[in-house]
Amino acid sequence: MALAAITEPDRPWTRRAFSPRFLEGRAWLRQQFVDAGMSVRLDASANLIARLEGRVKDAPPIMLGSHSDTVPSGGRFDGTAGIVAALEAVRALRASGHPFRHPIEIVDFLAEEPSEYGLSCVGSRAMVGELAPAMLAYTNAQGETLSDAIIRVGGDPSAIATLPKPIIAGYLELHIEQGVVLERNSLDLGIVSGIAGITRVEIVWKGAADHAGSTPMAYRRDASLAAAEMVLLVDRYARGFADRNEGHFVATVGVLEISPNAANVVPGGARMIVDIRAERVALVDEYVALLDRESTAIEARANVGRERFAVLSRNPPAPCDTHLRDLLDRSAAKLGYSSTMLASGAGHDAAFISHIGPSAMLFIPCRGGKSHTPEEWSEPHQLAIGAATLYETIRLLDGQNI
Amino acid sequence: MALAAITEPDRPWTRRAFSPRFLEGRAWLRQQFVDAGMSVRLDASANLIARLEGRVKDAPPIMLGSHSDTVPSGGRFDGTAGIVAALEAVRALRASGHPFRHPIEIVDFLAEEPSEYGLSCVGSRAMVGELAPAMLAYTNAQGETLSDAIIRVGGDPSAIATLPKPIIAGYLELHIEQGVVLERNSLDLGIVSGIAGITRVEIVWKGAADHAGSTPMAYRRDASLAAAEMVLLVDRYARGFADRNEGHFVATVGVLEISPNAANVVPGGARMIVDIRAERVALVDEYVALLDRESTAIEARANVGRERFAVLSRNPPAPCDTHLRDLLDRSAAKLGYSSTMLASGAGHDAAFISHIGPSAMLFIPCRGGKSHTPEEWSEPHQLAIGAATLYETIRLLDGQNI
Repeated sequence: MALAAITEPDRPWTRRAFSPRFLEGRAWLRQQFVDAGMSVRLDASANLIARLEGRVKDAPPIMLGSHSDTVPSGGRFDGTAGIVAALEAVRALRASGHPFRHPIEIVDFLAEEPSEYGLSCVGSRAMVGELAPAMLAYTNAQGETLSDAIIRVGGDPSAIATLPKPIIAGYLELHIEQGVVLERNSLDLGIVSGIAGITRVEIVWKGAADHAGSTPMAYRRDASLAAAEMVLLVDRYARGFADRNEGHFVATVGVLEISPNAANVVPGGARMIVDIRAERVALVDEYVALLDRESTAIEARANVGRERFAVLSRNPPAPCDTHLRDLLDRSAAKLGYSSTMLASGAGHDAAFISHIGPSAMLFIPCRGGKSHTPEEWSEPHQLAIGAATLYETIRLLDGQNI
Repeated sequence: MALAAITEPDRPWTRRAFSPRFLEGRAWLRQQFVDAGMSVRLDASANLIARLEGRVKDAPPIMLGSHSDTVPSGGRFDGTAGIVAALEAVRALRASGHPFRHPIEIVDFLAEEPSEYGLSCVGSRAMVGELAPAMLAYTNAQGETLSDAIIRVGGDPSAIATLPKPIIAGYLELHIEQGVVLERNSLDLGIVSGIAGITRVEIVWKGAADHAGSTPMAYRRDASLAAAEMVLLVDRYARGFADRNEGHFVATVGVLEISPNAANVVPGGARMIVDIRAERVALVDEYVALLDRESTAIEARANVGRERFAVLSRNPPAPCDTHLRDLLDRSAAKLGYSSTMLASGAGHDAAFISHIGPSAMLFIPCRGGKSHTPEEWSEPHQLAIGAATLYETIRLLDGQNI
């Protein structure tokens, strides 16, 4: 709550990456890390990294993390929960008196949320060598490059390309679920099976924008009819794919626009973006092919042209490490917490960190599944259960019980 | 074309009511009327009225008219065609040497197009006593009242309420069809059966704006699904009603908006406006009741709430006078022009004038049915056919052939 209070005063809870508030939040975090006996540094891409040394020289660190930036008018838990739960776990580890074999690192990844520079997961991309030079040239509305913004918050973009990828014992990220599965099923924890890949398809329909009063029904080429058919098909097929139980599968028409969108004009155009999230690439391929086929059939049926059918983006899924998942599972069971395995439909820094080492995620419930809104909420005991499980998992990963 | 050339130079063809261009256009028109031997006046609601006296004292005038204002980036024919065809008919009447029994009036009605003050058909409403004082208080974006705007263009709003309604022998308005029926059937003229009533219904759906990645299909309350079902039903039922051949019937979902309209959020809300045009009130009532029933059924089926189902406006149809229709028909036949009877799906000043006397409309084809766009076009010979038929009809109405 203390970190959340560092917000733009007129629109809580806002702490945008690269903003003065963001730096205030990091200054506060840095102090907490220091008070917990950790050393703190910024890496070349301005990830804030706190470290507690272990007793085995040169052992790879157990990495914990999440992000302290927020979306505009966002919540107090998305990202922050993962950082403070990790901090609490480290405090408890120190208090336990057990000297750890591995160093423990807590990373506040830079700009996980979609930033003003048109990119999300800036810090985790950079850490795993996937922040391309072209991305560093992205600009915000004021024309500042991402590269200059990183310098402004203490990074050194020129060093990013040659940075060695860290070697880690494992990466663990606690996060609020941003969904309702745990709440509806009264479960304490979600052990994340994997982070779904996100594929976005844009479909554009073109008909004729005729006068709504004077154009007889039989003469129309109404693009909204094709779009409406497609909206229903996207949903119906997605339900079928989800029911196959081949991992998480959802599809959504989140963007739907008709033009000219005037009461007295037959819609001459319609545009939609289909967002598809799945744990298996094969399912996505099959689903996109199905939409392609069906939209061609609609074109003929509705007497409108399918002007565009384009895959806008296609991020692969990132399965969570099975060993880490097993440790999370054992920890939850040992502590008597109920849990289920579930996929993350949203993207996270863990998806990028999985490219350099074993990574896993732990979800805690959030009220009504709400996230990215001021109402975002998890109860203190839900956070405590998550932190305790994280603590126990770190102990297992470090080999404390061997 | 000379009148059309009086346009905002950067966005042809724009001559918005109350603008300096509009007054320029009227000054040009006034000169044409004077050159044709007509006297010109402005009435209290700033309708520009040109008059050619007849030989029978106190005979009610034969009124011709349309409007010289345009929509933004509109066309060169919508409105203007009716004014200039009437002017040409009057010139020909004078040239014929036949002294007319009735006076002939040509009215350039004020602000037929939806104006900046949120009202259309301002002048024709006023002439028939249907411009309510509340409407005179409507304001534009700059806060000017419609009343003040009418004063600015030469009217006297304080006199509108007590104005006697004119007594007329009949009202004839030539207009471009704004549809494709004449063009597709290679017809010269449309004799308008009536001006369809316009009913607008707003339907708002409310579901839950959940995360598109983390909300399983089975947990969703997607408002876009209800909207999509409704879009398809509006169209399907409208086709059925049109096929009954009980006059013109069309229905359109011209406005469709989902919220928050973001690729990664399940649509939590959807809003649509259904535009219904029909010549028979009974059909509209039956259709709206059907939409009401079906949308309630969808509510249950799609697991979303129907938050609003509201009739926003309900303008009754205005049948054209059967005697005038017959005169138009006889004139077209006499001159050897092909014609059909068809309804006007769009609103016109004639709908209001029909409240005070016999009114009828004559349509000429326009290319591709396009209107309210810069591409709006009718060929010179199509305009000439319309003007000739108008001329002949005025002669019949005046009793010239008796």
